[in-house]
Amino acid sequence: MEQIFLVEGEKSVQEVLGSDFEIVEVYVSEKFATAHATLLKDIPFSQVSESDLTAISTYKTNRSALALVKMKENRPLDIQTGIYLALDTLNDPGNLGTIIRIADWYGIQGILASEDTAELYNPKVIAASKGSFVRMPVYYTQLDKALEQLTMPIYAAQMEGDSVYSIEFPKTLMLVMGNESHGISEAIESLVQHALTIPSVGGAESLNVAIATAVICDNIRRHG
Amino acid sequence: MEQIFLVEGEKSVQEVLGSDFEIVEVYVSEKFATAHATLLKDIPFSQVSESDLTAISTYKTNRSALALVKMKENRPLDIQTGIYLALDTLNDPGNLGTIIRIADWYGIQGILASEDTAELYNPKVIAASKGSFVRMPVYYTQLDKALEQLTMPIYAAQMEGDSVYSIEFPKTLMLVMGNESHGISEAIESLVQHALTIPSVGGAESLNVAIATAVICDNIRRHG
Repeated sequence: MEQIFLVEGEKSVQEVLGSDFEIVEVYVSEKFATAHATLLKDIPFSQVSESDLTAISTYKTNRSALALVKMKENRPLDIQTGIYLALDTLNDPGNLGTIIRIADWYGIQGILASEDTAELYNPKVIAASKGSFVRMPVYYTQLDKALEQLTMPIYAAQMEGDSVYSIEFPKTLMLVMGNESHGISEAIESLVQHALTIPSVGGAESLNVAIATAVICDNIRRHG
Repeated sequence: MEQIFLVEGEKSVQEVLGSDFEIVEVYVSEKFATAHATLLKDIPFSQVSESDLTAISTYKTNRSALALVKMKENRPLDIQTGIYLALDTLNDPGNLGTIIRIADWYGIQGILASEDTAELYNPKVIAASKGSFVRMPVYYTQLDKALEQLTMPIYAAQMEGDSVYSIEFPKTLMLVMGNESHGISEAIESLVQHALTIPSVGGAESLNVAIATAVICDNIRRHG
């Protein structure tokens, strides 16, 4: 069976049409067709009403576009130099999509995801990534085995760790982010060399995992 | 009419029961009642089944607790020294809740919100704030008028601005964050003294407003 996924909304459809993903079908509103005539020039598309678009969309309303796109194979990352992310049982699709967008913003080389992390092609992941999924390689794998084989230093966000403000980050590293409720699993924790913490000065007990990812990536990049 | 709002889930109900909010009703599961017996000691509560809890909740499942709580009056902030946030037409309830949690983490003194910002007591705001709404003062007001009266410097996140990495932030400031799609409105823009940008090294065009808020607060705090 061919594996197809849904890309919805103006920005995301624009991004996927301009990417190397294989497009199966594109449905667009008149407005989108007019605004993006150049992009659609060599792509067969169907123009439909905004209410039909909304009807086939997972969005509450969709007035722009929707594409059916072929999934890519789950391909190993070519891990060389640079900053990489590893996601250990990240459950929430919105968080995964947001992290993909953050990773794209901060020039992360690629993401390793544990096999039980939310599925890349879930419509909520695609929506939250705002098109960044076309640029960010994500590889699902047995994460502890993959991390064991790395020669680069492994950092992880943990409740008790060194302040991200006091660390001199190397140019090449793996940053592990854990599950929303349970943090980093035991098997992975034993592979982490540097535990990191974002200092808090207020009352909240924790930050959302996507927020924490952004703050740590920002601390890595500001001296990079 | 009495103004009541909904607080759902273990962490949020725990926080609101320990706060100065006036509780109208509390419904808890047996599990929550056992786990939080001390907290519930002086509070009249009803023990209900998990399926009844879920039925009255906006959550897909609710196995812990739900409280009906009296809204507080919209009260002006006592603006003195420290870091404050201003939200200019922030539409998305999830973003508002996440920003309240971030503000609480980074010890922000209070939040000014334009009158058309998402409503504080929306269940999605309360859920995303993870209980931080009990600590973070939020005041809805005509934002341009309020900012005009300030003597502290006004910073704002904008597409074109000085790098957050290069700025020496003062100990007292107002940080304005704009609308998800349209950024900062014209009336407010003319009041901003320092435009800030988070440098990007990747392909994404923008960051989500809550993510950007966290990154800027982190840059303000790391030298604070």
